[in-house]
Amino acid sequence: MRGRVFLVGAGPGDPRLITVRGAELLKVADVVIYDRLIPKELLGLCREDAELIYMGKEKGDTELQDEINQLMLAKCSEGKTVVRLKGGDPYVLGRGEEECRYLIERGIQCEVVPGVSSAFAVPAYAGIPVTSRWYSPSVTVFTATMKSGDVIDPDYIPRKGTLVVMMGIHVVERLREILLKVRSPEEEVAVIQEGTTERQRVFTGKLANLDQLVRVNGVKPPAIIVVGEVVRLRDKLWRSS
Amino acid sequence: MRGRVFLVGAGPGDPRLITVRGAELLKVADVVIYDRLIPKELLGLCREDAELIYMGKEKGDTELQDEINQLMLAKCSEGKTVVRLKGGDPYVLGRGEEECRYLIERGIQCEVVPGVSSAFAVPAYAGIPVTSRWYSPSVTVFTATMKSGDVIDPDYIPRKGTLVVMMGIHVVERLREILLKVRSPEEEVAVIQEGTTERQRVFTGKLANLDQLVRVNGVKPPAIIVVGEVVRLRDKLWRSS
Repeated sequence: MRGRVFLVGAGPGDPRLITVRGAELLKVADVVIYDRLIPKELLGLCREDAELIYMGKEKGDTELQDEINQLMLAKCSEGKTVVRLKGGDPYVLGRGEEECRYLIERGIQCEVVPGVSSAFAVPAYAGIPVTSRWYSPSVTVFTATMKSGDVIDPDYIPRKGTLVVMMGIHVVERLREILLKVRSPEEEVAVIQEGTTERQRVFTGKLANLDQLVRVNGVKPPAIIVVGEVVRLRDKLWRSS
Repeated sequence: MRGRVFLVGAGPGDPRLITVRGAELLKVADVVIYDRLIPKELLGLCREDAELIYMGKEKGDTELQDEINQLMLAKCSEGKTVVRLKGGDPYVLGRGEEECRYLIERGIQCEVVPGVSSAFAVPAYAGIPVTSRWYSPSVTVFTATMKSGDVIDPDYIPRKGTLVVMMGIHVVERLREILLKVRSPEEEVAVIQEGTTERQRVFTGKLANLDQLVRVNGVKPPAIIVVGEVVRLRDKLWRSS
């Protein structure tokens, strides 16, 4: 008898932002395989006899991804119900697609349970709506580093609208150069470290000085960069920090 | 004594995708003001004596928005705990920013509780991850119609990466023209009606024929349009439909 796998989005950091569906699955899972960037409080929902396995990874590590895939397959083949718990949303720069494909190609049932994406909720907790009737009818979310290892191709960056850059801190100088090929140095930026958690830190400035903003404040991953006029709304809206 | 307002994202349609935090607030609210596009099952979480007020709106109706704002203010001024329940995420093309600003400018505490965005979860339930290591490192979400009433300005549309268009069905012909200014007619598209619900319908084709896809299949709002190579993954991944 084969078990099944649920790829569950844990949300952005505040443990209360997991979905009801995700929380229910954590309560019944035999095995929970979790990432570095999940709210650790969520593990408290698991059964006392559940097997909790930490498989954190900082960057795209192919070897570790293979291990995770094989582990899911092995546990499932023992007939277990496996929850693969991932930060944010599994399908938004979360490699959920790779894990799901790997399992389905091997005949394993794999269901994706979307989570609240960090790309939207982290700005929200910092008082920044990613869209706005006045300031932006669009938001583009992208990873700073593509599969090739190169920093993002400017063709992915629209001339107008909000930008949310994930995993950009370690390449911030090169990222700034690329952004400046498409956007004005005068654009507002916000850098949000560990957003939605009690450790959240927010810094705002201009795109021209994005790298200094990160360096001077000693910003460390995980952090999200927001570019666009919506950053101005920060002083006008609710925020937790 | 003044109450407070929580702007809560109800998620994309499947009632199990509300956040734990959102569900808890629904259970304690004195007043719940809700939109047309929320999963009605969620109202079953409310207290028996809670006041449930329907304030649906199909399009951007300034008069109705004023009524909603005044209603939130009035209930709050009676010392009540008000949940304003909105489809998807309040800050992703949901006018949450306007409601939050209105209240804060009048000295009312207003907290935003992010929800799972339809922009990401609706494609996921149709088997389409909005990003992919192989097919797209980015996703742009936009509304088909801007505040001015015009269809989206092509400057908001990047040359590469996944596009998710919200509220595009009623202007699909003009939208197709604008998309074709930036993207190839050969690009894959998916049109998803009432995604994540039991009534979900999904149609795929080429951008060149986007308007026909909508017309021939009689697609009605609410529906989301996805453009990009990730649509090809639909046959390879889990989906509920």
